[in-house]
Amino acid sequence: MENFEFISPTKIIFGRDTESLVGDEVKKYSNKILFHYGGGSIKRIGLYEKVVNSLEKAGVKFIELPGVKPNPRLSLVQEGIKICRENKIDFILAVGGGSVIDSAKAIGVGVPYEGNVWDFYIGKATPRETLPVGVILTIPGAGSEASNSSVITNEEGWYKRSLDNDVIRPKFAIMNPEVTFSVSPYYTACGVADMMAHVMERYFTNTVDTDLTDRLCEATLKTIIKNAQIVLEEPKNYAARAELMWASTIAHNGLLGTGRTGDWASHLIEHELSGLYDVTHGAGLAVIFPAWMKYVYKHRIDKFVQFAARVWSIEPNFESLEKTALEGIEQLKEFFKKLGLPTTLKELNVPEKKFEEIASRCTNNGTSTVGNFVKLSKEDIVKILEIAEK
Amino acid sequence: MENFEFISPTKIIFGRDTESLVGDEVKKYSNKILFHYGGGSIKRIGLYEKVVNSLEKAGVKFIELPGVKPNPRLSLVQEGIKICRENKIDFILAVGGGSVIDSAKAIGVGVPYEGNVWDFYIGKATPRETLPVGVILTIPGAGSEASNSSVITNEEGWYKRSLDNDVIRPKFAIMNPEVTFSVSPYYTACGVADMMAHVMERYFTNTVDTDLTDRLCEATLKTIIKNAQIVLEEPKNYAARAELMWASTIAHNGLLGTGRTGDWASHLIEHELSGLYDVTHGAGLAVIFPAWMKYVYKHRIDKFVQFAARVWSIEPNFESLEKTALEGIEQLKEFFKKLGLPTTLKELNVPEKKFEEIASRCTNNGTSTVGNFVKLSKEDIVKILEIAEK
Repeated sequence: MENFEFISPTKIIFGRDTESLVGDEVKKYSNKILFHYGGGSIKRIGLYEKVVNSLEKAGVKFIELPGVKPNPRLSLVQEGIKICRENKIDFILAVGGGSVIDSAKAIGVGVPYEGNVWDFYIGKATPRETLPVGVILTIPGAGSEASNSSVITNEEGWYKRSLDNDVIRPKFAIMNPEVTFSVSPYYTACGVADMMAHVMERYFTNTVDTDLTDRLCEATLKTIIKNAQIVLEEPKNYAARAELMWASTIAHNGLLGTGRTGDWASHLIEHELSGLYDVTHGAGLAVIFPAWMKYVYKHRIDKFVQFAARVWSIEPNFESLEKTALEGIEQLKEFFKKLGLPTTLKELNVPEKKFEEIASRCTNNGTSTVGNFVKLSKEDIVKILEIAEK
Repeated sequence: MENFEFISPTKIIFGRDTESLVGDEVKKYSNKILFHYGGGSIKRIGLYEKVVNSLEKAGVKFIELPGVKPNPRLSLVQEGIKICRENKIDFILAVGGGSVIDSAKAIGVGVPYEGNVWDFYIGKATPRETLPVGVILTIPGAGSEASNSSVITNEEGWYKRSLDNDVIRPKFAIMNPEVTFSVSPYYTACGVADMMAHVMERYFTNTVDTDLTDRLCEATLKTIIKNAQIVLEEPKNYAARAELMWASTIAHNGLLGTGRTGDWASHLIEHELSGLYDVTHGAGLAVIFPAWMKYVYKHRIDKFVQFAARVWSIEPNFESLEKTALEGIEQLKEFFKKLGLPTTLKELNVPEKKFEEIASRCTNNGTSTVGNFVKLSKEDIVKILEIAEK
């Protein structure tokens, strides 16, 4: 186990009807807030009205900023910063999935910062303070409701970059599984791939002596695998939706990565697909992750055998542990297929001729590497994309 | 899964040499603190000197209050409150195990409270504020370093009672596994029983649909079981000490109990043993918990079969699931024995003629029940004590 620091102070308010508590919760921080959301879905499911009622009842004034898109854009973040400054707003309520929350976090750190908020996303500056952010989660997967990260896409060049800093962890996250009943099978599956990837990015590590966090990772993965299948059969199964929702938070609040170095290559490669082709993050991960695994599994076959045995209940083939390792990867891919996710770049309409460019973009034109489990060069990434092609 | 609220804001600073960071960490809160500890053990292992150096280097003044005993006493808490008030101290640093931390928490809530701090422990008042408390942990087990609870013994009547409130969660916990190398095999084992009990109190529940938390509990238990055995063979095995130390925090920071109702009968029965006979908490739990299990397992045999199968890797006997359930309980008891812990009240010198009195004390003279999994009357508790006798 490595030395580590860990803090996850987000207050979780979980369960039926919890959205009605939002007004009182926000009131602890502010009387005038930015109410940030995406499109019409929160209106369709009646959540918008509940939030407005609760805020009004608590005497909290709000200015609305809707319009967050998947792969949230820097331009809207800039608009949010401007609104907050002009209206002396000191709290942001994000009602939505990871994109809305990430956008709110970006606005939060942008308001008190004199420079361009994009500085934080390209490592040019480090945020020291933020407006507090609260969340009502509507789509589980990104784990942004309690995480220390935010991913934003800059339309100038379509770069998707992330900021990771404990300062941006939300103050509270309201999570009612009923709100997720209407999430489509496809977006549910994308969320599942995302949360599984968050666990697996931490699971495949060079750090040794990781008993507890290995087992916590496996516990989370097994829970997700079981309940994802139930939810796709029965979208209104409260228990299964609740398991997925809570698992998505645990998968990415940092606990599972304590004392170990995560990989994150698959996420970084996927960010280029999302940036360039507006691919849904979870769908991109469903394609990239198994391809990455096939490329790197020999580096620590023990870890992949353990993954196969403990997560997928595959009896190890001691005559050929490699077969067991590969079977685990295959099971993951089959699982993604079963959920209706793409598992090839072809399905995502990412053309082969762009592989070089994608690999180049995530390695600073081939001058840096990506990932920690195996440090991947530009050439390695091209090979992974080739594995992912079909 | 039930609705829940969860917040665990303690900053964890984990790993080798982390105690040297204490001065800078404390400095964020205060320039003048109470330095609270037990006896000479922190001096023997050189920790005292390191803490003093770090505090002095950071320019933090401190007043010492040593003398915390296992089953920490109200009288010392009162003394700490007086010292803090008289010296305008606004931060408490606890260096020790659960007893020292619990004592520090009690002082923390006592200082700003006009009444008697014992009010908080008998439900007569609820704390709204506290002096901030920081921790350097030396004995894993109690989980107090990140928990919302504190257990204090009132010498008037030898009542041991607990306060549970999120207000008292420590601000930070510094955890260096090396510091625990010198913990004796017996106290290591007591800590192990305590942390396992914290998981099992949550595990055995009437709440249904608890996939994720069940599995997280099992992951934590398996990790403890494996690493406890390593540590008793090799007291200076860093990796195993680290697993135990981190597991003890996870076991009791509340995460494993999210969305489910815990039992806590074994803890409450054990508190009477500790209060009356000054039994080490973990040793008392090693006696009471298996006896409690034998008394209640038929209430939800599925849960006990799952415990046997998933935690102890016992292949279920489908012809007699009861046998499987009992085998799981037996394995736990054998495990405690192997660690050198007592498993009978006789070994703890608790006389049979006192069973009535003990049962009476934890049920308000037989007027209330104890526990949630099965609500235990005074008579039930006497029967459990009889099972625990030999």
